Amino acid sequence: MHLPENRNKRKIFNDPVYGFISIPFDTIFDLIEHPYFQRLRRIKQTGLTHLVYPGALHTRFHHAMGTMHLMGLAIDTLRSKGVDISEEEAEAVTIAILLHDIGHGPFSHALEHSLVSGISHEEISSCFMQKLNDEFNGKLSLAIQIFNNQYPKKFLHQLVASQLDMDRLDYLKRDSFFTGVSEGVISTDRIITMLNVVNDELAIEEKGIYSIEKFIIARRLMYWQVYLHKTVLSAENLLVKILQRAKELAEQNERLFCTPPLEFFLYNKVNKDTFKNDDKTLDIFAQLDDFDVMASVKVWQSHPDKILSLLCQNMVNRKLYKIKLRKKPFHKNDFEAEKKQISSQFNVNEKELQYFIFTDKIINNAYNPKHDKINILFKDGSILDIAEAADNLNISALSKPVTKYFLCYLKS
Amino acid sequence: MHLPENRNKRKIFNDPVYGFISIPFDTIFDLIEHPYFQRLRRIKQTGLTHLVYPGALHTRFHHAMGTMHLMGLAIDTLRSKGVDISEEEAEAVTIAILLHDIGHGPFSHALEHSLVSGISHEEISSCFMQKLNDEFNGKLSLAIQIFNNQYPKKFLHQLVASQLDMDRLDYLKRDSFFTGVSEGVISTDRIITMLNVVNDELAIEEKGIYSIEKFIIARRLMYWQVYLHKTVLSAENLLVKILQRAKELAEQNERLFCTPPLEFFLYNKVNKDTFKNDDKTLDIFAQLDDFDVMASVKVWQSHPDKILSLLCQNMVNRKLYKIKLRKKPFHKNDFEAEKKQISSQFNVNEKELQYFIFTDKIINNAYNPKHDKINILFKDGSILDIAEAADNLNISALSKPVTKYFLCYLKS
Amino acid sequence: MHLPENRNKRKIFNDPVYGFISIPFDTIFDLIEHPYFQRLRRIKQTGLTHLVYPGALHTRFHHAMGTMHLMGLAIDTLRSKGVDISEEEAEAVTIAILLHDIGHGPFSHALEHSLVSGISHEEISSCFMQKLNDEFNGKLSLAIQIFNNQYPKKFLHQLVASQLDMDRLDYLKRDSFFTGVSEGVISTDRIITMLNVVNDELAIEEKGIYSIEKFIIARRLMYWQVYLHKTVLSAENLLVKILQRAKELAEQNERLFCTPPLEFFLYNKVNKDTFKNDDKTLDIFAQLDDFDVMASVKVWQSHPDKILSLLCQNMVNRKLYKIKLRKKPFHKNDFEAEKKQISSQFNVNEKELQYFIFTDKIINNAYNPKHDKINILFKDGSILDIAEAADNLNISALSKPVTKYFLCYLKS
Amino acid sequence: MHLPENRNKRKIFNDPVYGFISIPFDTIFDLIEHPYFQRLRRIKQTGLTHLVYPGALHTRFHHAMGTMHLMGLAIDTLRSKGVDISEEEAEAVTIAILLHDIGHGPFSHALEHSLVSGISHEEISSCFMQKLNDEFNGKLSLAIQIFNNQYPKKFLHQLVASQLDMDRLDYLKRDSFFTGVSEGVISTDRIITMLNVVNDELAIEEKGIYSIEKFIIARRLMYWQVYLHKTVLSAENLLVKILQRAKELAEQNERLFCTPPLEFFLYNKVNKDTFKNDDKTLDIFAQLDDFDVMASVKVWQSHPDKILSLLCQNMVNRKLYKIKLRKKPFHKNDFEAEKKQISSQFNVNEKELQYFIFTDKIINNAYNPKHDKINILFKDGSILDIAEAADNLNISALSKPVTKYFLCYLKS
Repeated sequence: MHLPENRNKRKIFNDPVYGFISIPFDTIFDLIEHPYFQRLRRIKQTGLTHLVYPGALHTRFHHAMGTMHLMGLAIDTLRSKGVDISEEEAEAVTIAILLHDIGHGPFSHALEHSLVSGISHEEISSCFMQKLNDEFNGKLSLAIQIFNNQYPKKFLHQLVASQLDMDRLDYLKRDSFFTGVSEGVISTDRIITMLNVVNDELAIEEKGIYSIEKFIIARRLMYWQVYLHKTVLSAENLLVKILQRAKELAEQNERLFCTPPLEFFLYNKVNKDTFKNDDKTLDIFAQLDDFDVMASVKVWQSHPDKILSLLCQNMVNRKLYKIKLRKKPFHKNDFEAEKKQISSQFNVNEKELQYFIFTDKIINNAYNPKHDKINILFKDGSILDIAEAADNLNISALSKPVTKYFLCYLKS
Repeated sequence: MHLPENRNKRKIFNDPVYGFISIPFDTIFDLIEHPYFQRLRRIKQTGLTHLVYPGALHTRFHHAMGTMHLMGLAIDTLRSKGVDISEEEAEAVTIAILLHDIGHGPFSHALEHSLVSGISHEEISSCFMQKLNDEFNGKLSLAIQIFNNQYPKKFLHQLVASQLDMDRLDYLKRDSFFTGVSEGVISTDRIITMLNVVNDELAIEEKGIYSIEKFIIARRLMYWQVYLHKTVLSAENLLVKILQRAKELAEQNERLFCTPPLEFFLYNKVNKDTFKNDDKTLDIFAQLDDFDVMASVKVWQSHPDKILSLLCQNMVNRKLYKIKLRKKPFHKNDFEAEKKQISSQFNVNEKELQYFIFTDKIINNAYNPKHDKINILFKDGSILDIAEAADNLNISALSKPVTKYFLCYLKS
Repeated sequence: MHLPENRNKRKIFNDPVYGFISIPFDTIFDLIEHPYFQRLRRIKQTGLTHLVYPGALHTRFHHAMGTMHLMGLAIDTLRSKGVDISEEEAEAVTIAILLHDIGHGPFSHALEHSLVSGISHEEISSCFMQKLNDEFNGKLSLAIQIFNNQYPKKFLHQLVASQLDMDRLDYLKRDSFFTGVSEGVISTDRIITMLNVVNDELAIEEKGIYSIEKFIIARRLMYWQVYLHKTVLSAENLLVKILQRAKELAEQNERLFCTPPLEFFLYNKVNKDTFKNDDKTLDIFAQLDDFDVMASVKVWQSHPDKILSLLCQNMVNRKLYKIKLRKKPFHKNDFEAEKKQISSQFNVNEKELQYFIFTDKIINNAYNPKHDKINILFKDGSILDIAEAADNLNISALSKPVTKYFLCYLKS
Repeated sequence: MHLPENRNKRKIFNDPVYGFISIPFDTIFDLIEHPYFQRLRRIKQTGLTHLVYPGALHTRFHHAMGTMHLMGLAIDTLRSKGVDISEEEAEAVTIAILLHDIGHGPFSHALEHSLVSGISHEEISSCFMQKLNDEFNGKLSLAIQIFNNQYPKKFLHQLVASQLDMDRLDYLKRDSFFTGVSEGVISTDRIITMLNVVNDELAIEEKGIYSIEKFIIARRLMYWQVYLHKTVLSAENLLVKILQRAKELAEQNERLFCTPPLEFFLYNKVNKDTFKNDDKTLDIFAQLDDFDVMASVKVWQSHPDKILSLLCQNMVNRKLYKIKLRKKPFHKNDFEAEKKQISSQFNVNEKELQYFIFTDKIINNAYNPKHDKINILFKDGSILDIAEAADNLNISALSKPVTKYFLCYLKS
């Protein structure tokens, strides 16, 4: 009997969102197989959102595959309209989108406010790409150029990072799908079909203008209803507080049950320099995922530190902070009485109170033409920003950011 | 400022499968809030299936909510046809379906072949229900009677456990949805609409007969394409082997990094007696979930035992066993050469070979009239088993179980 | 052998949009069976839109069934929130919505600009309801009161006719579905779930505010992309011109092939008075449907009048007017040259030119708070119009109507 | 001002089933624009099925576009697997599928039993193709060869006409979609992805075997639940009887209101010879569509012949025949009493009774390996018929045709 290796690099993935996803290039297959990328299977795309929307357990792996799929559609569409994209560029821009989020850690937002500081996930993505490029003998060089917007054809970068990039198109659709917030669904097909390139910039053809309006409003809705949903904020802030408390205890050399990679990040100061200068940091970061964090949080429920144990019990049993969200800021005086009550009830001092009651703000900016615009291409060849191209002032209105303020507090 | 408790027990859940799920009874709300039930949020419904279908990360929590939703529809339908179901019975049968799977541990199938032996998840479910009944002052007594088929109205039990129970209706639909295997989708709406009760037994009205054929074929398809997919089998068997090896090492008092609940199950013999006679066992079991297992597996990648570390690296980096699936059994002689090659290549003895190459069988039984039948109710009031009622022998054919055999082996 | 009548008035309809639609009241069943209502099976909901979106062949019958279904959901939701709706009122408001469009003729918009003048479809609906009420011995009296907004509980009328009535909820969803313009899809489920009644007015609960924003933008999009799509406008205007020409010829006593009901409306002057004072008019109107119009248009392709025959050939073979759509009006001078060219090419005089080139305007008003507002209900019980309640000025912007102008002309 | 002709032959159609359909070749665009093809916009795909499933109003035009779309996918898939298909062949096979049903008349089944006899719609399709080929200067020659299975590459014909042709794949999916019988939905994507060619025959790759099982069962279900639904049978037979009666009256030189093309087919004997030898016949047939038939039926409601008028009133107001469906044939004696009752009630003679009560049979053959097989291609390159390849006898069972018998009768 013969045991053959039948390694087919043109594998097909089932995706409930798009049906089938196929792998377009052999290098892509090898990147997907790499432990750095497989790790994304263990990092949820939307952190703790599943505590509000139980279906939202999809991973950054799945999102990355989705962006790769959409990139293929975008390349086909642009080529069919005469935009010149070589095979090499097609592979590179697909690699760039596949790896655009590879620097995300578990519960990324919470992590960046506690364990890892002074370095963004985009910068960590760059570190990973650099290291992979070494391993792959320079095959990622063009992808990295595009990712960093250093490649002459600027529109390729825009497919990876802009207001209409494949990242946004996929995450809005995917997050809508898995949360069940069907109103966030966008028509990626139609938007991609309307893509074109003018003066080396991405543009949407005129008849797609209402699809873009809808895309902007869907994005706004997803922010309020999912990403900035008040219970999601409450859960994320609870995790921030847990990790901050753990870090605080670690700095006092308290013993904490930890998986090895989490231990490294709790008991060491890690910042941009350590990432860039010490190979070990990136390797250990690559071992860190949702399992390290949640397995440790579960054990910390019985830690002797009463604050840590209480917060962890609340997380595990989904007893989240009560939260109030409103348009005007919370001033100290607004919750002086509550602080006193909490202080006496939980018997905590002024400094410890930050784990029990606190306030912060959030911003929702459905369309931000300052960073980069969404261009509308008219039949006569002229180009306008969507806010000006619209036949109504509604998009202008949506380009004004909306700020809200929240107060979180523990209830007895 | 006033910080109110606004606890609304009639909360609505978003479910991408059904749209909205509402909570029908206050006791149900309290059960969902209980840590025993919240724990199901951390146990995936389909174990390691996500290694083949990346979307299949949905949890037993979500499935249980889905069955609760379908039970509500079934109760409404049956009542509209004059079937007598009191409010008390409606609540009880809904509790019974909500808790029907509460005894599942993480990666249930793998667990039952390694850490926990001699007790089924159904029996553990019973233990949980008993304990919850104590806490809820007997409010679950009727639900337990129905669950155990000790209640006079037998059809209520059939709604919880039979060939057309709400469990199957939900899991087929939900697993299809999250895997993206759209062909497994069944029309739960239509099937429930066709439900009726005759002689205290569930029956499907005549015009629903083709829907049931489709349901049986969809079930068959889901077994081959998802539950018994060869790569899924490979992954599950890899986890079984990992846990068996870990248990073996634990029995030799080797030190293993573990979360506390996993440690308990690794370093102690646990069986039906310990569950029934020692309260602690159930409580510790209730702390065990996917995070304990996978966080530990990740750490074991660097364990000194070369077999354990190799298997764990393979799991984490998705280098699964090669697997062959066929209709006739594998005899020893069929893979003698492979054993020799593996033995020399990995330098392992005869006993250790079981971790590198092994064979087993699987059975797919799309429709099993021996356990309980699917009754078809004709307009003249007569009842027939679907296999007899069908206008063709295809259902009879499907009531014959199909057995297949597989061989798993590690490649260098 | 016995041939029984098994008339089940609680029949279930398959609807690709909602799955199943069941008939809630016996009177509703009898109304659906009535020839006046069956007639709606032969009148397409969106006229000639199928010439652009080939799937848009759904009928006013199907839409009416859909509104009936949504009304059932709305009644359930409102009752569950403590709003008092008696069985009698529930039946009446369901009848009112079922019949709200019964006065529509074939290609309603075109018809009102040619064959029938001085009476709106709403008034014809009233005539039908009155006549049905006579036949049904007064069973429709309450429904008619609600339809005419003469019933004390004003919110019941709002369910039938307002910015959030079941009519709009169904037609946006249904038209999106059948055209395939998936971006017009609205979440009827979610919107209905958020309905409440305050001070006898419908209101949407605060957390539904983004769903309403999305609803308004979807409506705007459906107007531009479907109802006011330029090719749809071109087709509709072609039919208007055909019917105007036929009427003109009929007034000159030219013979035209016609089905009997169409003959009546071509060769007689019909207005509000004839409808109200002459029973025959309503009865003949009830015989008129899409088949009468299109079958005649097909025959007119070979009519001796060269204008009529040319226009009809263009309709049948889908050679529609060229059309230009823009924000500023077309002045005479803008197309003087074209008129001359057409005039000489087709050899037509100044008066006849109106059939070959003409201009008109359209208005899209996504949200019109002047007619009636969409109320948002806050947790503290206060009520605000959505344009004020929104956290951004985008809805205010959308309450400004957008006017566009078009020029249609025949090409050689 | 300039009025340009902007004729873009690469137009995109919205299709609710597939999203977008684009036109792959210029000749295809011209064929779609041709009146022979535009005519299919006025012929419903499923005849009178909409009387049971109100959404089923989709046309043969839309189905033809769908098959064209699927053909594009199939060509892409096969080419990606190394199957040689030249551009010329791709265009030809796409033309062949686009025109495969062009010979269908309105309510085709009813028509073939009344107005047109001795010639099948396939033969009329051939006539149309021949005539179009003349007009298009021989551009359809290769398409015609493929359609008639006279081209060496046999698998191209199988894509057009076989058990897995694009025709079946589209109609099952499309009819499921528009009826709302979601259980008939098949996964066209997956099936096409599994297509391959071996020994010049289409085959399905091994792992697609369960998809094919599901396809066969879905087909079986669609037959019983839609195409052979007893109320659909009743409606179709009512139309047959109406047209037979009209023809009978026409043969007696009774005057009947008719559109001109219907008049031709009522008052003339038309068969294969007239179609082939007299150009006029095909041209007049090309003018006949649903509007001619239904507009005339509506007028015949008041025809002096009491049988014709009664049947037509029943059709228009949806008072269909009562119908009984069963496994054993109806013998004369089974309904002797009913005949007597009807005879006296409606005062009709023995010969006329055929319009009031009659019996017939239907056959459902889910899989028919006698005509042509569905080949399963195994990894080792071997080929088996699916009935043999399946791991269970269920497909063998389904290859046995099921016959049922019905009795239709008018109720007073």
